[in-house]
Amino acid sequence: MKEIKCVAALASRFGMLPGVGKKTAMRYAYAVIDMSEQEVDAFCAALKEVKSTVRLCAVCGNFTDGEVCELCETRGKKQLCVVAYPKDVTAIEKTGAFDGAYHVLHGTLSPMDNRTPDDLNIKSLLARLDGVDEVIIATNPDVEGEATAVYLARLLKPMGVRVSRIAQGISMGSELEYADAVTLSQALGRRTAL
Amino acid sequence: MKEIKCVAALASRFGMLPGVGKKTAMRYAYAVIDMSEQEVDAFCAALKEVKSTVRLCAVCGNFTDGEVCELCETRGKKQLCVVAYPKDVTAIEKTGAFDGAYHVLHGTLSPMDNRTPDDLNIKSLLARLDGVDEVIIATNPDVEGEATAVYLARLLKPMGVRVSRIAQGISMGSELEYADAVTLSQALGRRTAL
Repeated sequence: MKEIKCVAALASRFGMLPGVGKKTAMRYAYAVIDMSEQEVDAFCAALKEVKSTVRLCAVCGNFTDGEVCELCETRGKKQLCVVAYPKDVTAIEKTGAFDGAYHVLHGTLSPMDNRTPDDLNIKSLLARLDGVDEVIIATNPDVEGEATAVYLARLLKPMGVRVSRIAQGISMGSELEYADAVTLSQALGRRTAL
Repeated sequence: MKEIKCVAALASRFGMLPGVGKKTAMRYAYAVIDMSEQEVDAFCAALKEVKSTVRLCAVCGNFTDGEVCELCETRGKKQLCVVAYPKDVTAIEKTGAFDGAYHVLHGTLSPMDNRTPDDLNIKSLLARLDGVDEVIIATNPDVEGEATAVYLARLLKPMGVRVSRIAQGISMGSELEYADAVTLSQALGRRTAL
């Protein structure tokens, strides 16, 4: 069966969303047929509003609908948590374990993908170190995240700021039997006194 | 962290799509921020075009962007396959095992949900029986699908048309060990000669 042209076109738009394959995209497109005209209009309005309203916070680089984001306005500036992407801010905020401010790099260093320090939101990090006691680097514990952490530590330490890295080890609730060798050997090497 | 208002609003729109939970909806909404303005405009245009273009085929009730759908225009009318939803047409077409025409009921009988024969696309089915040899009822093998099949069979048989039902039994590639009792007993009861 040849799919209806405009339905296939809509499906290809849905297919641009993260993790949406061909089948799911078609399913979404068919669901739109069942929506009312008002719902489709509201969907479009919501899409356009996000695109026109959301920008990057002038201070930390996180998403915001104002000039400066809510977190920058309300949080103490003694501790800065540096993350790669806005979604990482959301993840850390969900824990409730950090009450300092954030800084979003919008990427990690990757020579393979031609991402150099100039491509990251680092200049504005250096510009806001006044009064900062500690910079906690919370990039992912993968090759690029580690490289970025090492780069930032070398850059920041000479400026007299304490630099730390989130701990790596065995996840809570996981089993040693199934942990990968790198994680397990790091957990041993970085063991803590009881 | 309080989510940005318009991002949360867009996420709730995405949440209306089938199978999209809160987390996925937020992920989609954040992905829209990363799209270009042109992409968002094209997304909206595609949404609106589907809503304004797609209608139900005047003959079979399937989705179409014309007056009569492509399948009704091109297929022989000796065999009619009756399905509950347009997606079922897509599923059967994918098999390539049927070259007749379809009829889409847009639902199944369900006294629980107050869906009576008047709510289904049955009148237009009765109006197109001229020259039809066989009506194959391909509703799902669940309570509502079975009830609908029995209802249609009783309605159609007196009109001199052959009525059949898609076969039920063990799925290809499945294992007897894991088949549910109803399926297995039906497979035994409806065994075929070799």
